[in-house]
Amino acid sequence: MQPEDTPALRELYAGFERQHIRPLWTQIGNLMPKHPHPQAVPHIWKWADLLPLAQKSGELVPVGRGGERRALGLANPGLGGNTYISPTMWCAIQYLGPRETAPEHRHSQNAFRFVVEGDGVWTVVNGDPVRMSRGDLLLTPGWSFHGHHNDTDHAMAWIDGLDIPFSYQNDVGFFEFGSERVTDYATPRFSRSERLWCNPGLRPLSGLQDTANSPIGAYRWEFTDRALTEQLLLEEEGQPATVEQGHAAIRYVNPTTGGDVMSTIRCEFHRLRAGTETATRREVGSSVFQVFEGRGVVVIDGATHRLDIGDIFVIPSWVRWSLQAETQFDLFRFSDAPIMERLNFARTLVEGEAP
Amino acid sequence: MQPEDTPALRELYAGFERQHIRPLWTQIGNLMPKHPHPQAVPHIWKWADLLPLAQKSGELVPVGRGGERRALGLANPGLGGNTYISPTMWCAIQYLGPRETAPEHRHSQNAFRFVVEGDGVWTVVNGDPVRMSRGDLLLTPGWSFHGHHNDTDHAMAWIDGLDIPFSYQNDVGFFEFGSERVTDYATPRFSRSERLWCNPGLRPLSGLQDTANSPIGAYRWEFTDRALTEQLLLEEEGQPATVEQGHAAIRYVNPTTGGDVMSTIRCEFHRLRAGTETATRREVGSSVFQVFEGRGVVVIDGATHRLDIGDIFVIPSWVRWSLQAETQFDLFRFSDAPIMERLNFARTLVEGEAP
Amino acid sequence: MQPEDTPALRELYAGFERQHIRPLWTQIGNLMPKHPHPQAVPHIWKWADLLPLAQKSGELVPVGRGGERRALGLANPGLGGNTYISPTMWCAIQYLGPRETAPEHRHSQNAFRFVVEGDGVWTVVNGDPVRMSRGDLLLTPGWSFHGHHNDTDHAMAWIDGLDIPFSYQNDVGFFEFGSERVTDYATPRFSRSERLWCNPGLRPLSGLQDTANSPIGAYRWEFTDRALTEQLLLEEEGQPATVEQGHAAIRYVNPTTGGDVMSTIRCEFHRLRAGTETATRREVGSSVFQVFEGRGVVVIDGATHRLDIGDIFVIPSWVRWSLQAETQFDLFRFSDAPIMERLNFARTLVEGEAP
Amino acid sequence: MQPEDTPALRELYAGFERQHIRPLWTQIGNLMPKHPHPQAVPHIWKWADLLPLAQKSGELVPVGRGGERRALGLANPGLGGNTYISPTMWCAIQYLGPRETAPEHRHSQNAFRFVVEGDGVWTVVNGDPVRMSRGDLLLTPGWSFHGHHNDTDHAMAWIDGLDIPFSYQNDVGFFEFGSERVTDYATPRFSRSERLWCNPGLRPLSGLQDTANSPIGAYRWEFTDRALTEQLLLEEEGQPATVEQGHAAIRYVNPTTGGDVMSTIRCEFHRLRAGTETATRREVGSSVFQVFEGRGVVVIDGATHRLDIGDIFVIPSWVRWSLQAETQFDLFRFSDAPIMERLNFARTLVEGEAP
Repeated sequence: MQPEDTPALRELYAGFERQHIRPLWTQIGNLMPKHPHPQAVPHIWKWADLLPLAQKSGELVPVGRGGERRALGLANPGLGGNTYISPTMWCAIQYLGPRETAPEHRHSQNAFRFVVEGDGVWTVVNGDPVRMSRGDLLLTPGWSFHGHHNDTDHAMAWIDGLDIPFSYQNDVGFFEFGSERVTDYATPRFSRSERLWCNPGLRPLSGLQDTANSPIGAYRWEFTDRALTEQLLLEEEGQPATVEQGHAAIRYVNPTTGGDVMSTIRCEFHRLRAGTETATRREVGSSVFQVFEGRGVVVIDGATHRLDIGDIFVIPSWVRWSLQAETQFDLFRFSDAPIMERLNFARTLVEGEAP
Repeated sequence: MQPEDTPALRELYAGFERQHIRPLWTQIGNLMPKHPHPQAVPHIWKWADLLPLAQKSGELVPVGRGGERRALGLANPGLGGNTYISPTMWCAIQYLGPRETAPEHRHSQNAFRFVVEGDGVWTVVNGDPVRMSRGDLLLTPGWSFHGHHNDTDHAMAWIDGLDIPFSYQNDVGFFEFGSERVTDYATPRFSRSERLWCNPGLRPLSGLQDTANSPIGAYRWEFTDRALTEQLLLEEEGQPATVEQGHAAIRYVNPTTGGDVMSTIRCEFHRLRAGTETATRREVGSSVFQVFEGRGVVVIDGATHRLDIGDIFVIPSWVRWSLQAETQFDLFRFSDAPIMERLNFARTLVEGEAP
Repeated sequence: MQPEDTPALRELYAGFERQHIRPLWTQIGNLMPKHPHPQAVPHIWKWADLLPLAQKSGELVPVGRGGERRALGLANPGLGGNTYISPTMWCAIQYLGPRETAPEHRHSQNAFRFVVEGDGVWTVVNGDPVRMSRGDLLLTPGWSFHGHHNDTDHAMAWIDGLDIPFSYQNDVGFFEFGSERVTDYATPRFSRSERLWCNPGLRPLSGLQDTANSPIGAYRWEFTDRALTEQLLLEEEGQPATVEQGHAAIRYVNPTTGGDVMSTIRCEFHRLRAGTETATRREVGSSVFQVFEGRGVVVIDGATHRLDIGDIFVIPSWVRWSLQAETQFDLFRFSDAPIMERLNFARTLVEGEAP
Repeated sequence: MQPEDTPALRELYAGFERQHIRPLWTQIGNLMPKHPHPQAVPHIWKWADLLPLAQKSGELVPVGRGGERRALGLANPGLGGNTYISPTMWCAIQYLGPRETAPEHRHSQNAFRFVVEGDGVWTVVNGDPVRMSRGDLLLTPGWSFHGHHNDTDHAMAWIDGLDIPFSYQNDVGFFEFGSERVTDYATPRFSRSERLWCNPGLRPLSGLQDTANSPIGAYRWEFTDRALTEQLLLEEEGQPATVEQGHAAIRYVNPTTGGDVMSTIRCEFHRLRAGTETATRREVGSSVFQVFEGRGVVVIDGATHRLDIGDIFVIPSWVRWSLQAETQFDLFRFSDAPIMERLNFARTLVEGEAP
């Protein structure tokens, strides 16, 4: 396929080098594969490994201005040491000790937190204190000031999801320091954002302008759990409600548009009835799951992996995956699907279905 | 302004008549006024007058196939005897006696019901039984089969809102009979639509396709009341939450889009703190209000009208109006604003503000 | 179906009357028919009848402030003497004598002109002089100042289309007088709007904000003719290009969105190859056609009508229609389809196709 | 800022390594800079250097299946040897000798070609032969089959722009081989896509479905030139038409939406009147320019670079740039702006204007 190696060709290639040129014909197979061939690999981080390291960090590493957060980023083994769980997404376990404060800052990167266990921390987003409790999804969309403080005498850990790799690769990030302390140490049960926006189907007349990201600061576990419970009950009653048999799922959305919570990150929660096996899927774009409750396995490219509460795994683009539930099995999921859909790159293949 | 009346002109005008022609110059002032000059007039229907007539209808008029509904339509005195509360909207008080059933049908007209008092009726929308209770807004978007049945030994009255005049004037309506009896006499506390869709900020993965009208069958008073209560509390805390000082308000929305519940009808609920006077507004399009709770007045084009619970009033296009609350004052509102906005005719003038 | 006529019922009905109430059960069949039953009727106005009346008006009726335009409105025989060609649309033949000026004004009603013959008039839209020539479509979207002047020694006639009936029925219209003379008597070959916007696929960086109505003042016959010619040639070459066999058609669009030229009015041009018969269609909403060139017939509800150049006919909502071309047959069409589509009432039935 | 280096910390860090974890506090300054700090650098490739290398490649390197294209990719000196002109975009000079054919294939990457000189090649896109001539922009949106053939006895060179780096980094690419020869060797003056879609403001009724990418295969120089000429003439006439004084510009758009031609790539053409200096801008996202005609300079981060016809330069994200025209100065531009806008990362700073 390649031209014959001659002195003339070598001279040509040397000319290329001098002029910062590389020919397509030497690299097209790599650059333009038949289907996505991610360098990122599927990987599972066990909560039982992560949490002790976070706790140890709590002892050894202070939290404060400069380092900003005591966050342990998960580095996909295929991505050459970068702290990217996938080419687009960042996932970290963050840890805040008793009475600690993580200072305020803001950045154009979109961020969320999901709480797999514990409580006691409030995240203060643009001055609005938001309680963090088990099962809650908390948003800090791009360019919102935010800091956290632990109001209790016990430590708390949770996961952070951001679009840091995407922002870094594409040179879109801005960052600004804010207050050294959070701007409001109040510990209300519900944030102002929830009081305004978490009334189903009701929109405040003071908020008729659509926003790029959701105005809801906290998506509470109580609602998520109820939504999933109802889907499975409706399925039992013979009603269409689940995404496939035994598989309930919700997407967290921006109530001003019905679309994804943030421009770059999709967040979902999935619940499988005990014994359920999902279809095997391949999707363009990368996904991260965290087990919230129950036991089961994920089958990735034919290999079966046992999962326990808190375990985090990443599915790179176009990798085959399915889930099997031993008990009722609850998983939080986030992905870069809004990027894929908005740029027209989304594709899904469900095995056994016509494409 | 008009041409001189000559035999030649009369002959011309006779020619116009023969050819089904009318000249613009004889009618432009009427057809194209400086600003909207509705034939519809502001009018108030007192609940104390309406309810006894509805009750009497319950005695004298059966409900069933053909007449379809025991509904008393409010006919704007300016609209020549048509049962139009405004040029676009229909409003009726509907009455269902103990154990009665209103048969199923469907039509392209969009419809809702709002319950100012009572309970005991279920409306069955596309097979989904929806409880009707005080303060609830119930939707039956165009082309949904629906019937009602009263599960109790007491009668119930409520108001219906539809776009019948608009549909009739513009020849868009289709109608189909359905089951003589409702297809499901179950009386669940919550409809399936609520169980799927009334989880704030959560969207079922089985319902990712946007719909023109809201998939929510019932907007419950509990949520409306809480949303308004929170807005007034937030205002007291110094936070932006109300639409103007002392005036809380929500719009009922389609969760798949964040937009109006139906293509032609906007529904809102307004609460004024005791003592509040709203700004005076003029808006393109017509609005209907029903007092839900409290006492106050509406000032329409300078005239003050005392309002009691259940009273219904209509504000035609571009008529000046404001509200004043004696006690905490709750009003349900519906309007044709989606028509005006989608067709680019919307304008609002708030007195004392720049247009 | 109706309740028995008793003294009690009569008393009830009298109570209804006093309270401005009309019961649904006496009128539902009329108000909510099985499918649209327009009061508007299909009707054809012959150009041979219209033009002489317009010419005679030119002799007898001055044009100027007050009457504003020498426009002969076509009044649908079914609509009780109102100058409505359909419930939503106005269509008139307008006539401007040699050297005459029609003064400037603006209104929220959307308007266009289509030129079936002649030239010599410029319409000045927001200060931009727009030449009017045979086959051109000229826009004056809502709230644009506009006046016309005839730069020649011969008279000119054309048709106007507006949403006057819709605006009148729904009380949305505003009107304002402008300059007594047009603000610019220049007679450029191309308007500024065309110079900025009529470069196919190219958008000025100075015009990146989308607009509700098209920024193009004139859609020239040269382009329309070429587009239709190419569609028929492509069809001959075996390529997909026409809307049905032998039937080329374009829609005039707003280049900032790709959608209809104005919020309430759709404009199209249709060309049938000699011998072509279109499918028979029923559509929600009303349409008006004017024959531009060629000979053929329209079949409306089974009745065949011969058509000549300039003839105008209206198809009310849900009436069956088809066209047959004797020669190559060119027709301009406008309709209220944007209203129907934006409000979710659009339906089309093509006979012989699945709905 | 960093914790004290102790044995315990080293053990912790070793634990991180074992578990594929990297702490945020060691890398936040790099990953989340105050504003974009691209690794890509501004760079200029001189046409006088590129063209001879392309010609020499024509002698030494065959074109055909496997290598697919004789394309010399421009490799940003800051991006470590990857053939990325920026983190998102690919730019290459492609060269096709007399009578040569580049075989058909398709890929999800979006592509365009721009012709700075020459003619004689047809690109066949989904079976539609598209002439390539000086000043034309040709599109091959993602997943369109396309091949090229040179119908003449002289070689031709042009530039290709694609989103290869973005697709590669984010694992979204699919690729499929097509015909070894192009599927149609016809050499029509205008492609079928142009005949259907290049009639300004007119949309075929056979193409009412919006498409993610433009259906236009070729944007001809004749139209681009005329649009720019008119903008400058309008400016001389005192009309708003240019983007800033002396600076005419158009964006190539998808006629079905009025938006960018493809989901990931914006294409524009800019013309400066002789003597014009643009404002200095910083923008999120990267841009590539090619000089089409005239002489001038670009000032990048304060450094002035002389530009000649054919020269290509890249402006990485948030780098300051302005242009100065010695003669009338024409430049083609493409960028990743649709990515930035759709994902809500776009920001522009014009020096001397409020942000």
